[in-house]
Amino acid sequence: MLAGIYAPIPTPFDSAGEILEDKLVENVQRWANTDLTGLVVLGSNGEFVYLSPEEKVRVLEVVREALPADRPVIAGTGCESTRNTIELTCAAAEAGSAAALVITPHFFGGGMTAERLHTHYTEVADASPIPIMLYNMPRNTGLSMPVSLISDLAQHENIIGIKDSGGNIAQISQMVRDTPDDFAVFAGSGSFLLPALYMGATGGTLAVANVVPNLCAEIHEAYGAGDCERARNLQRKILDLNAAVTTGYGIPGLKAALDSLGFYGGPPRLPLTPAPPAAKEDLERMLQDCGAL
Amino acid sequence: MLAGIYAPIPTPFDSAGEILEDKLVENVQRWANTDLTGLVVLGSNGEFVYLSPEEKVRVLEVVREALPADRPVIAGTGCESTRNTIELTCAAAEAGSAAALVITPHFFGGGMTAERLHTHYTEVADASPIPIMLYNMPRNTGLSMPVSLISDLAQHENIIGIKDSGGNIAQISQMVRDTPDDFAVFAGSGSFLLPALYMGATGGTLAVANVVPNLCAEIHEAYGAGDCERARNLQRKILDLNAAVTTGYGIPGLKAALDSLGFYGGPPRLPLTPAPPAAKEDLERMLQDCGAL
Amino acid sequence: MLAGIYAPIPTPFDSAGEILEDKLVENVQRWANTDLTGLVVLGSNGEFVYLSPEEKVRVLEVVREALPADRPVIAGTGCESTRNTIELTCAAAEAGSAAALVITPHFFGGGMTAERLHTHYTEVADASPIPIMLYNMPRNTGLSMPVSLISDLAQHENIIGIKDSGGNIAQISQMVRDTPDDFAVFAGSGSFLLPALYMGATGGTLAVANVVPNLCAEIHEAYGAGDCERARNLQRKILDLNAAVTTGYGIPGLKAALDSLGFYGGPPRLPLTPAPPAAKEDLERMLQDCGAL
Amino acid sequence: MLAGIYAPIPTPFDSAGEILEDKLVENVQRWANTDLTGLVVLGSNGEFVYLSPEEKVRVLEVVREALPADRPVIAGTGCESTRNTIELTCAAAEAGSAAALVITPHFFGGGMTAERLHTHYTEVADASPIPIMLYNMPRNTGLSMPVSLISDLAQHENIIGIKDSGGNIAQISQMVRDTPDDFAVFAGSGSFLLPALYMGATGGTLAVANVVPNLCAEIHEAYGAGDCERARNLQRKILDLNAAVTTGYGIPGLKAALDSLGFYGGPPRLPLTPAPPAAKEDLERMLQDCGAL
Repeated sequence: MLAGIYAPIPTPFDSAGEILEDKLVENVQRWANTDLTGLVVLGSNGEFVYLSPEEKVRVLEVVREALPADRPVIAGTGCESTRNTIELTCAAAEAGSAAALVITPHFFGGGMTAERLHTHYTEVADASPIPIMLYNMPRNTGLSMPVSLISDLAQHENIIGIKDSGGNIAQISQMVRDTPDDFAVFAGSGSFLLPALYMGATGGTLAVANVVPNLCAEIHEAYGAGDCERARNLQRKILDLNAAVTTGYGIPGLKAALDSLGFYGGPPRLPLTPAPPAAKEDLERMLQDCGAL
Repeated sequence: MLAGIYAPIPTPFDSAGEILEDKLVENVQRWANTDLTGLVVLGSNGEFVYLSPEEKVRVLEVVREALPADRPVIAGTGCESTRNTIELTCAAAEAGSAAALVITPHFFGGGMTAERLHTHYTEVADASPIPIMLYNMPRNTGLSMPVSLISDLAQHENIIGIKDSGGNIAQISQMVRDTPDDFAVFAGSGSFLLPALYMGATGGTLAVANVVPNLCAEIHEAYGAGDCERARNLQRKILDLNAAVTTGYGIPGLKAALDSLGFYGGPPRLPLTPAPPAAKEDLERMLQDCGAL
Repeated sequence: MLAGIYAPIPTPFDSAGEILEDKLVENVQRWANTDLTGLVVLGSNGEFVYLSPEEKVRVLEVVREALPADRPVIAGTGCESTRNTIELTCAAAEAGSAAALVITPHFFGGGMTAERLHTHYTEVADASPIPIMLYNMPRNTGLSMPVSLISDLAQHENIIGIKDSGGNIAQISQMVRDTPDDFAVFAGSGSFLLPALYMGATGGTLAVANVVPNLCAEIHEAYGAGDCERARNLQRKILDLNAAVTTGYGIPGLKAALDSLGFYGGPPRLPLTPAPPAAKEDLERMLQDCGAL
Repeated sequence: MLAGIYAPIPTPFDSAGEILEDKLVENVQRWANTDLTGLVVLGSNGEFVYLSPEEKVRVLEVVREALPADRPVIAGTGCESTRNTIELTCAAAEAGSAAALVITPHFFGGGMTAERLHTHYTEVADASPIPIMLYNMPRNTGLSMPVSLISDLAQHENIIGIKDSGGNIAQISQMVRDTPDDFAVFAGSGSFLLPALYMGATGGTLAVANVVPNLCAEIHEAYGAGDCERARNLQRKILDLNAAVTTGYGIPGLKAALDSLGFYGGPPRLPLTPAPPAAKEDLERMLQDCGAL
């Protein structure tokens, strides 16, 4: 069963937008020296929508090679079409990914009925050599999977969990209640990691875990150890930094924070542009508040 | 400091829409024999928007008289204008209410800047003989107060808490963190009572507490006693019933459930209409699942 | 059949929030000397949600008395409950109003099914001595009446039209198509007056008609005269001013613009607050662009 | 200057999801025998999000070859990243497209500031050998370009127009007013074609033009000839069919309608699934009402 804290890593580009494999390797080696359970590659923070299919596979290979074998790679493989999703999921398996994180197709949002999403995920799970993790991301997709659909899909033996970035704690409570015990519910944002764990989630995939991995892992550990007071204090501590690297300054902010910490952040691909200097100062102040700088 | 479980009681009407004071008294006497801390009168579930100013004051008087003195009445007194809110708040104080619950004005939603809401609540709190509780209810108002505004208002000595029905657990975590220790954060729905308590809320005002008051109070008690497993199981148990008497079947559903339990529920005022028979059956099944029937 | 341009007039208050009847009379006398067909009293711009029932009736009486008999008064009488709406509608009839404009009840938005809205409007129309005009105002209510409901209600002999502030031109086209020929569709904002007329609307109730009444009336007249080029140029001319006194600066902006024009605008009631100086300058520039100043 | 009626054609697949080039050719030949000005290939209705980059180029080539040279092909080339958009736009130019229709990037919607969108479109327009048409599609993207941005971009000599599917007629009026005379504003849906023309649009790209091309072209022609009554009647006639093949039954509905008309519609790619039999019956009834069947 999936558990623990994963960082959904960004993809490093040079100023012309080319992928920097060596920087990716260096970053991964640094994350390997933290308390992170594993890495999510090609999540939203990986700017997956800006990568070609070939680039996606290459990034997965590079990360898998650079990361010690005991740390799993979860690959973001969701595409708009079922066929492309299957194709990329198989390639991700080939590249050594432990599981595939599959975002809801959403461009034709009005047409994405529960029935069609059920078909989509079932076809992908049937065809995939590796386990599937659902990915509910309402802010970016405009769609939120109903709990009844999640509950149905959780019956599939190759669908092992969900990353929920919606953060509706009542829905998370229901997901946990209405899915098998070995179905993993993951918090998709650091803003609600602890309450999600408290209601039965087993881990999280958190943008903020890129910059304060040990702090995030400590929330998970403190909660597991029954030390609620410590967990709560840490949870409160990361709230502002978490907001800054997600809804606040977005991926440009996340990359700027990584630069401040000695990782390679670098620029995002266009149309995203680097965070402005004021954002960097703001982020550095928050990193200091969290003891990361 | 405010703490515990409050039921936001409905207003009983006859089939012509007239208020039934005797039924109100009987209902209140029954709730007085439960583990509820107190009652919220003229909340959303009280159909306050359908009552005239005179009816509102009368309902407050009747409830205050029928309820034992050690159980506080919190009065919903929010109106669109600051002046009407002050007037009704003063009348509620006169009628023996312990505090006033003041919903955000919202008809001119686009104009309800943080600055104007700050002025509104400050004027009301300055003028009120009783403490003020903020009321954030995005689903009905289309507005959500930013945490920074709540934090500012919490500095006012006559603003003692907030009922948050938005249920964004990250925002609730921030509210608790960014307000004084004696500022009470209340869950505004049973769907997130326990996680809210876990993140520092001290109580709840829950529609579902009308129908399963002891069960809701037990969640609060179990959490306080450190019995997380029991609390979590109870929280999961009330999720469906809670949804049914709020977003599902609404006030008509809440009233139908009360009828099934031997309270007087009765019809809502038009344009609301009674819950259909199928809803009543559904509700009775859920009440049985919760051991209430 | 209803036709022509109506101004939904604001309610004048002094700095303590008291209604200034003499200023109201003066304003009405000025509008009486314009090309406006009539006035809407207690519309959204009348801050009707901030007035007590008694104040509402008084304002209707004052306006009716001040306005020449050949100019109709349409009274905003919509309340959340059916009973309060009927009561106010009857009082408005007593006060000499020609018709009642009834906004959709909306606080329990999720419960406002087409069936319940149908019941609400039918009950009101049955009880009312004067004709009813539906009022669709999605921005303030969060609700939009489906065309099929409007079409059904248009069969009622005492429901004679609709003010649509949603501005979806396809829906307006459908409304015109799917209602009887003598059912009046009115544009609820100056931003889409001309295209609405082109698709079959017969008039408009426009905030901007308070400040540039003759210009709005000229759009209507030019369209009627088949002078599309003139109509189009005028329509384009009012777009910015219209936005400024509605979504831009709201009622405070509308009142500031009236002050600039020599009407009495004055302050809104709290929680609304007067427009800031920069807004007034901006508005005066737009009034000059429209030749009103 | 762009003008006239374009059909955004669907992509024909077999039941395994493979592109059927021969069916595409046959369809194009049929559309070539209508009054359509040209075709939009790889628009939303072309299921462009389900096609690989290679498939996209191939479809463009096939259509260009099958369509008489005097009928322009507009190619949908918008991708999430600026670089991919440039690449595909250049390939589309190579394939003989007359212009490129570039949808707003939107996955990172919160990050798509006016400034970033300005950069995106400027970079694409600078690099493109063919003129660029902006594509505003709020329903699918969750984003709506502000008129001020459109107005700025319209200054670029290689940005020649916009397809607006938002349908806010006030915004369309502003776009026309605030852009150069040779900048083309196109209605993106048949539901507001005529009012858009009336406010200064010069054409439309309409899903419904796939099934009733001559009827759509007649609206354009009648409007141009000053025959408003005929134009209005035709506009009203297509409203229901238009809704059915867009928001109602979506692309599956559009394809079903094409099948009924003797074109090849066929199934969409998964996760979309074919329209159910009831939808087909409903569509056939509407096609009959429009005289197309």
